[in-house]
Amino acid sequence: MKKKIVVLGSTGSIGTSCLDVIRSFKDEFEVIGLAAGKNIELLLKQIEEFRPRAVTVVNEFLAKKLEERLPYKGIEVKHGKEGYMELASFDEADLIVSALVGSAGLIPTLCAVDVGKDVALANKESLVIAGHLVTQTAKKTGAKILPIDSEHSAIFQCLQGQDQNAIKRLILTASGGPFKDSSTSRLETVTPKEAIKHPNWKMGKKISVDSATLMNKGLEVIEARWLFDIELDKIDVVIHPQSIIHSMVEFIDGSILAQLGIADMRIPISYALSYPKRLALELPKLDLVSCSPLTFEPPDLDKFPCLKLAYEAAKIGGSMPCILSAANEVAVEAFLSNRIRFDQISKVIEEVLNRLEPSSCDSLDAIINEDARARLTAEMVIQDFCG
Amino acid sequence: MKKKIVVLGSTGSIGTSCLDVIRSFKDEFEVIGLAAGKNIELLLKQIEEFRPRAVTVVNEFLAKKLEERLPYKGIEVKHGKEGYMELASFDEADLIVSALVGSAGLIPTLCAVDVGKDVALANKESLVIAGHLVTQTAKKTGAKILPIDSEHSAIFQCLQGQDQNAIKRLILTASGGPFKDSSTSRLETVTPKEAIKHPNWKMGKKISVDSATLMNKGLEVIEARWLFDIELDKIDVVIHPQSIIHSMVEFIDGSILAQLGIADMRIPISYALSYPKRLALELPKLDLVSCSPLTFEPPDLDKFPCLKLAYEAAKIGGSMPCILSAANEVAVEAFLSNRIRFDQISKVIEEVLNRLEPSSCDSLDAIINEDARARLTAEMVIQDFCG
Repeated sequence: MKKKIVVLGSTGSIGTSCLDVIRSFKDEFEVIGLAAGKNIELLLKQIEEFRPRAVTVVNEFLAKKLEERLPYKGIEVKHGKEGYMELASFDEADLIVSALVGSAGLIPTLCAVDVGKDVALANKESLVIAGHLVTQTAKKTGAKILPIDSEHSAIFQCLQGQDQNAIKRLILTASGGPFKDSSTSRLETVTPKEAIKHPNWKMGKKISVDSATLMNKGLEVIEARWLFDIELDKIDVVIHPQSIIHSMVEFIDGSILAQLGIADMRIPISYALSYPKRLALELPKLDLVSCSPLTFEPPDLDKFPCLKLAYEAAKIGGSMPCILSAANEVAVEAFLSNRIRFDQISKVIEEVLNRLEPSSCDSLDAIINEDARARLTAEMVIQDFCG
Repeated sequence: MKKKIVVLGSTGSIGTSCLDVIRSFKDEFEVIGLAAGKNIELLLKQIEEFRPRAVTVVNEFLAKKLEERLPYKGIEVKHGKEGYMELASFDEADLIVSALVGSAGLIPTLCAVDVGKDVALANKESLVIAGHLVTQTAKKTGAKILPIDSEHSAIFQCLQGQDQNAIKRLILTASGGPFKDSSTSRLETVTPKEAIKHPNWKMGKKISVDSATLMNKGLEVIEARWLFDIELDKIDVVIHPQSIIHSMVEFIDGSILAQLGIADMRIPISYALSYPKRLALELPKLDLVSCSPLTFEPPDLDKFPCLKLAYEAAKIGGSMPCILSAANEVAVEAFLSNRIRFDQISKVIEEVLNRLEPSSCDSLDAIINEDARARLTAEMVIQDFCG
């Protein structure tokens, strides 16, 4: 029996890598649903190749355009929020890949775990802004959340066969981004083009900027907190520029388990898709000798305040991580459209965190409200900055 | 219920570390038997502290001397081969720590698994010279073999919760020993005192010399072959001078799991003692930043032929690994007593391997015969070398 897969965010970076894996293991998987955003050209190619039963795009206009060009009959075309939700809870699906970018990924993710579907999770915002809600729901319905992020996949792999009570701390590794060794003044002149060039991983634009500010690692810390049900002060970050060790777990006996690999998202994706099985991927082998030496540094929180802000927001809890994430999305977008400087991303976020009081944030509606409030505030802060 | 432990080799390096761990977790463990060699002064101290029900020493003379000085009544004093065997199969024992040095460890280890006792195994010769016999017997009786060696413990930890079929290869790390970067001519002048100074681990003399010749790694390769039931060509060795990564497992998806830690045998010992639980050891924490960088090199098989000889002997199989191990013991002893040079250790072993035809080696008697034959031949080769 093939595992029936729905890919939410199929035309994005993780979505296409996910389809790469599925393409190589057609005996293992069947794609029954694809949800894209606006890129209907690529979606059409994916439809032709994988022949899903249903697809979703972002709005009705694109849905109509798509319907005119469908390569075969009997395929359902949906759109918008309802469309994503329907695909996320697709009755026959065995696994939902949640790879939409940003907070748009939350509702479908929540939808999937609510009906007890296992979720391969790449959308970190789901756990950052609604970790409590998503994990509680999953616990109730028995849905498994399988991490796709290389760091969380590493930790997930290290924790197999281990006792939760034996964990001393999680150690997330961070490449440090392209400006790890840049001066503070250099950070003022970073262009969007420079910021989206990640030294080790090929990734989407937003996540590349997050990686350059270390906000990505901050969001991952919050994500790990929920994913592995562990206290925040048991999650550390270490800079490891080579990105060979993808993350580690330290146990109470002093033993550390680490997962290593080449920088190819197909490894964590395939593990999430086929868990607990492993697939024989045909990838270049990690050559320890040629990737030697492996180095480690403490993160510079003064130069990269986003990581510190993430820890602070997570410590406060409630809607604060949601506010942090929303403010970050708006700030990164403003940076990418050249409205603010690179070093102002953290300043916008900090100002938003200062201006807003957190709420308890225990329902989806509350989260959506907080998200909107944070975006509005971030927009106002940016306008103040641009002045 | 405390776990009842017998420590074979209690006065050696591993034995004393083992008792260190037990001392810190007296609620977890009870020592019911101790087997030493000749060091009755230390054994007496251990008897006083741990109050075992039975002890064994190497011969009747020492047993008598010990009996005169026993600190309490009701303790059985045994001696010799029978004594070790009786302790190894101690009826009430939950776990036998097999930490005798050299081939003397085989019979008690085999004895323990034969009666279905779980064995925490530090004596690598048991698996090197009789791996087939020991693992087959353990499979029959259901006895677990829990590795104490830091490398095998690392692999054992990485394999928890993983599918045996998903293993691509095991990667044993080796420090490279104190002469990793020495010239070939320098190896001719190495003294016993220099050879027993291991750069990262505090160990017994014989194993320190083995570590300097890389024979230790060769024996570990053979041990891993049996312990993890894996083909020889799926076991690689990489030089990792910092000894921070204790070994690794590569899986078919390209993912590598590694175990890291400080160089303290109490970590693997405690894992073997309390498996599958972990104990909260109070040890210095591994500081990744200060131990950075971690480097990897291929082993130099021309400069350190012992590793190559071990692979070759293992490939031939039968009694060849037994012959290798026995010849190595005799050659190391000859080096430590200044009869041969450091670089002649491998030459003695190679010559013994050349002179002897391997047999099938499927019984304990056959192994004992092969061991004796190899020792005699090694002695003759050494005499030839010494002219």
